[in-house]
Amino acid sequence: MKKNVIVGQSGGPTAVINASLYGVVYEALNREDTFGTVYGMINGIEGFLSDHYIDMKPLEISGELELVKNTPGSYLGSCRYKLPEDLNDSVYVQLFEKFEALDIGYFFYIGGNDSMDTVSKLSRYARKVSSDIRVIGIPKTIDNDLVETDHTPGFGSAAKYIASTVREIAIDASVYDNKKSVTIVEIMGRHAGWLAAASVLARKFEGDNPVLVYLPESDFNQDVFISKVRKSMEKTPNLVVCISEGIHDKNGTFICELASDVGVDAFGHKMLTGSGKYLENLVKERLGVKVRSIELNVCQRCSSSMLSKTDQKEAIASGAYGVKCAIEGETGKMIAFKREKDEPYTIGYTTADVDIICNKEKTVPDEWITKDGTDVSDEFITYAKPLIQGEVSVAMEDGVPKFAYRRTKSGSSKF
Amino acid sequence: MKKNVIVGQSGGPTAVINASLYGVVYEALNREDTFGTVYGMINGIEGFLSDHYIDMKPLEISGELELVKNTPGSYLGSCRYKLPEDLNDSVYVQLFEKFEALDIGYFFYIGGNDSMDTVSKLSRYARKVSSDIRVIGIPKTIDNDLVETDHTPGFGSAAKYIASTVREIAIDASVYDNKKSVTIVEIMGRHAGWLAAASVLARKFEGDNPVLVYLPESDFNQDVFISKVRKSMEKTPNLVVCISEGIHDKNGTFICELASDVGVDAFGHKMLTGSGKYLENLVKERLGVKVRSIELNVCQRCSSSMLSKTDQKEAIASGAYGVKCAIEGETGKMIAFKREKDEPYTIGYTTADVDIICNKEKTVPDEWITKDGTDVSDEFITYAKPLIQGEVSVAMEDGVPKFAYRRTKSGSSKF
Repeated sequence: MKKNVIVGQSGGPTAVINASLYGVVYEALNREDTFGTVYGMINGIEGFLSDHYIDMKPLEISGELELVKNTPGSYLGSCRYKLPEDLNDSVYVQLFEKFEALDIGYFFYIGGNDSMDTVSKLSRYARKVSSDIRVIGIPKTIDNDLVETDHTPGFGSAAKYIASTVREIAIDASVYDNKKSVTIVEIMGRHAGWLAAASVLARKFEGDNPVLVYLPESDFNQDVFISKVRKSMEKTPNLVVCISEGIHDKNGTFICELASDVGVDAFGHKMLTGSGKYLENLVKERLGVKVRSIELNVCQRCSSSMLSKTDQKEAIASGAYGVKCAIEGETGKMIAFKREKDEPYTIGYTTADVDIICNKEKTVPDEWITKDGTDVSDEFITYAKPLIQGEVSVAMEDGVPKFAYRRTKSGSSKF
Repeated sequence: MKKNVIVGQSGGPTAVINASLYGVVYEALNREDTFGTVYGMINGIEGFLSDHYIDMKPLEISGELELVKNTPGSYLGSCRYKLPEDLNDSVYVQLFEKFEALDIGYFFYIGGNDSMDTVSKLSRYARKVSSDIRVIGIPKTIDNDLVETDHTPGFGSAAKYIASTVREIAIDASVYDNKKSVTIVEIMGRHAGWLAAASVLARKFEGDNPVLVYLPESDFNQDVFISKVRKSMEKTPNLVVCISEGIHDKNGTFICELASDVGVDAFGHKMLTGSGKYLENLVKERLGVKVRSIELNVCQRCSSSMLSKTDQKEAIASGAYGVKCAIEGETGKMIAFKREKDEPYTIGYTTADVDIICNKEKTVPDEWITKDGTDVSDEFITYAKPLIQGEVSVAMEDGVPKFAYRRTKSGSSKF
């Protein structure tokens, strides 16, 4: 009578998406009265369609599951697979036949916007065919752009990495503090500036770096930027500027596209470059000062060295809470956070309708961005600071972090 | 009768150059019977020429000195200032007048190749004018390219950061392990490949990433590279390739120069790009697979999150040992490490002639590089592994690392 459970991960990884996996698996394995086997999909719904899945129980027995908790990346592998809009598509029949064959009663999917689209479609299809399968989404994204939740697991650790790294970059930039210089740090975020905004958590005193912060929520003007940089260097000779990768002009053209319009590589093709590199050239050209650009790149989502304890705790809890909600009969829902208090920081767990979440994007509120679009307000700091608190001690082995490695069918390790 | 001490930092910073500063200052302050005031030059010899220096004693009293130990960057500020070859230049007269005015008897300079050039010139000038000032160099460079020493402080922490980060990047790259991909990681090192070589410490099992590692010690051939990448992907679908920034073709042309020969930015100027970006475009063009390049950039020298305990301990000890050598009358010397044993790893401290060091560059030995130039041997691993062992717990404050900040004369903080 006991139904089985399946869990998958989808979309870009975060430093705590495996903590959410841990939360789901640990909770489900410890309710043997309710659940049968707990399966993990390999490469999400895409891998599952090719019958790639594993039994999660051996991981608990071997102790590997504890290691999974602190391992960045997606332990089960991920995918970017969009289910068809048309619920009459044969892929749904195929998927639900596979669910039935494995006697799946509970489906958990850990991911962001696109993954919640999968949760939405699967739950709607289940309703359509009167299937009892309960479909629950567990939120994950460093971008923090999901609506209906105070924030998303993954954001806190990325924000902590960004703030700490920008702090260190500012120190590095200031060793030649008898010469003027500009350092541009490019941070992830195509449409939402939450991560770039988190760089202000690096500030330690009035006027400290990063002095200028640009989010995609405001239009970016190159001339105004240059005059701001010039003026800011009068007070801060070693200026650090943080930008979202998605900054754009008033016509909506990404700054990085301006560069690739003109740059040509060795093969005569458009040279793809980042916004930071573009602005580095702009500052060099216009101001003639020493300038450097730094792209934080994937390290901001995969570093285990700056895991936020708060973030990891909430990631685990949201996985576990998802299991509880599924038992209580919920489906077509994403686990959401409701902030109860800023200080001391407390949140509660609730559920939100995935159909609303999957089509929306939450950006930084206008009133949290200063009028000139070069900084964020204290409200943002009050909001973000609790999310980066606490540290996680990652086990080390031979001088580098010890992580979990999934074995492939051939017996070799995955990574 | 007691002479005073002055210490400075010069060249690019490392994660432990302040640990060496701590070593010099702590040791000197604790020999009140021998030394008078302990001064710190602000911005090295360049700042000292403008009378920028501070008394270090208050730092010990306030406890700030303990914080300096774990702070990346150069606490005293740095410079890139080359003293004239001609010892008859008036700048030497000027400097030694300033030394005399401050009653300096001991001069310590923490830095790499160029800084040892300063040590060499000052000690030779001292001899020339029969000055008693003892001039001692304390080694520092992430590049590990100083001769006459087993390795240099700063290398171990950078190597630990690189190995850990490449590990995390490999995990991140493998989340879509059902699709082929190439990730190119560009690592510092213009002429010596020690840091890129350190990426192999990330490997956890036979055939693990990084599969290919390219150092500037070997000539780089693009066609051979592409066929190696193609072949390696057969076994490792999510391939990670690590390269030194300084890889070059058989004519000595840097790979990054090939790109800037053709790329043009928005202003019609040569677009400066890195070797990694160039190879990203090359792989995309030739192999058509998903490819990404990541430049570790300044993080590899300024991150406090992967400080090697071994490296920090040796940095402090080399500072302290420098003080002892100066007392014993040595001058014109750099503190050097002599490895006594690989396992258990033990080193001894000694001194080496700066005149030899300042004009040479130590590269990775040919016999430690595999014949095809895509990997390093076990000898390298035996050499490098002890240097990344042990962790340092950095104090945290408000969710980010707590660092020391030097106050400027105006009372505001430096950084």
